[in-house]
Amino acid sequence: MDGTPGEISAEQQEREAALVERVLASYADTPDPRTKQLVEALTRHLHAFLRETRLTEEEWKRAIDFLTAVGHITDDRRQEFILLSDVLGASMQTITINNEAYANATEATVFGPFFVQGSPDIGPGGDVAHGAPGEPCWVEGTVTDTDGKPVAGARLEVWEADSAGRYDVQYGDERVAGRGHLHTDDQGRYCFWAVTPTPYPIPDDGPVGELLRATGRSPMRASHLHLMVVAEGYRTLVTHVFPRGDAHLDSDSVFGVRDSLVVDVHQQIPTTPTPDGREIAGPWARIAFDLVLAPER
Amino acid sequence: MDGTPGEISAEQQEREAALVERVLASYADTPDPRTKQLVEALTRHLHAFLRETRLTEEEWKRAIDFLTAVGHITDDRRQEFILLSDVLGASMQTITINNEAYANATEATVFGPFFVQGSPDIGPGGDVAHGAPGEPCWVEGTVTDTDGKPVAGARLEVWEADSAGRYDVQYGDERVAGRGHLHTDDQGRYCFWAVTPTPYPIPDDGPVGELLRATGRSPMRASHLHLMVVAEGYRTLVTHVFPRGDAHLDSDSVFGVRDSLVVDVHQQIPTTPTPDGREIAGPWARIAFDLVLAPER
Repeated sequence: MDGTPGEISAEQQEREAALVERVLASYADTPDPRTKQLVEALTRHLHAFLRETRLTEEEWKRAIDFLTAVGHITDDRRQEFILLSDVLGASMQTITINNEAYANATEATVFGPFFVQGSPDIGPGGDVAHGAPGEPCWVEGTVTDTDGKPVAGARLEVWEADSAGRYDVQYGDERVAGRGHLHTDDQGRYCFWAVTPTPYPIPDDGPVGELLRATGRSPMRASHLHLMVVAEGYRTLVTHVFPRGDAHLDSDSVFGVRDSLVVDVHQQIPTTPTPDGREIAGPWARIAFDLVLAPER
Repeated sequence: MDGTPGEISAEQQEREAALVERVLASYADTPDPRTKQLVEALTRHLHAFLRETRLTEEEWKRAIDFLTAVGHITDDRRQEFILLSDVLGASMQTITINNEAYANATEATVFGPFFVQGSPDIGPGGDVAHGAPGEPCWVEGTVTDTDGKPVAGARLEVWEADSAGRYDVQYGDERVAGRGHLHTDDQGRYCFWAVTPTPYPIPDDGPVGELLRATGRSPMRASHLHLMVVAEGYRTLVTHVFPRGDAHLDSDSVFGVRDSLVVDVHQQIPTTPTPDGREIAGPWARIAFDLVLAPER
């Protein structure tokens, strides 16, 4: 038999269904209603997966071995379970569920593992690069509510990889680079220098990398700049800006791309005057991106 | 909102559904068709779970931490992922799927982590206890096919915990006890001495134990004796015999119990002659259990 439901006898289907009911019944005394809801739903979906795919015992064993490998590579510096959640789209789905569509509010995307508390205050027009190699990129825009009213004093956190695809926490020393924060002015405006985002792979030398190779997928993340906006009375926004034209926009390994977050990067020739008079020897770029905050729930 | 689908806007539902489609599309180039089928089904069921429960970001984080703890307690001697699969009924469902109902063939149940290759040949009427403490128990029956024809020379593997709930591999020394094998005679008959099965808890000092406590469940396994029957031309049968009257038959922590595997244990007073003339100082017991093999697929 090939496992299509029509070929499974009524007796066999009854056995499988009865087992699901037995497992569900075992949660009857769960004290916390939400926990009960979660374990019941987990059980139903897990068993539906096993029954639908007619998972073999050999495949089950491989799944156990895979999870064991994910567990054993995970330590204080590497979180392979988050990576697994990312490449299955589960992280992005959780973010999507918890940041519901609200009017024209800017869409949220994955937080990622590279945010660090206590970033330097770079002030308006400051430079988040702080020595991180890359093409200088001027980023500017406004923070408003969904009616277009400026949000003054919003805290904007910015972090990004350098042109070699590395975040400062991956340098292996104590350098702080490619991260900083600033606040919007009384008209909700912000601007800062960064480096033009470039693509990089997620760590693919572990079991998640094997999964990507087995499914013909790329480990590359589309180029992006991380932004987090915190302002009183508004839902905290965790998002990215993605340069248009990046080769990985349609194959971002963690499914973080939203059409509404893709922006034009305007390349500038070296002689073009910079917005703040900064002197730059080579080419530079600029990005404009307006952020719209949803009200706090 | 409380997460009932009716309260989720069409725009929000579309965003969530579109993400699932994006993840599914990422597997388009998977070379192996079965792998493709498995990752697609996993993705659909995982996202359905997230969307149905409206999993919060805090709950997602707790799930990551839980899996990390399961991974970190797992080593060569302890397999917490198998334990997790067991208590979610996933191990038993996989066994059920792969040992389809066939006429009156004896039902299969969980294999468990305590089988050891190369058990001693105890011969007909031999004693698997080999010093394991417990009440002596005479076990006898036949091995036949589904038409009642005897299966001669079938290899019967037997293993069990002692009366303290421990298998020999848990003694911490090299003793072999509570395990052995024998073959059926030319009329398909078998008999051996064992110890009357007693209940014991699965390891509950790790994250799986926490899950059981959070859901008000017991870690106890119903009393059982492991049997595996291997015979040429037949599907290998991995099963248990469960003594009737055990307090944990309805709450077996790994869902291994089948009504058809529950048998009467006939308690004997010390003066009752034993079937093979063995002299026993105290009380003993006997179990009769006939095993029926399905043909090889």
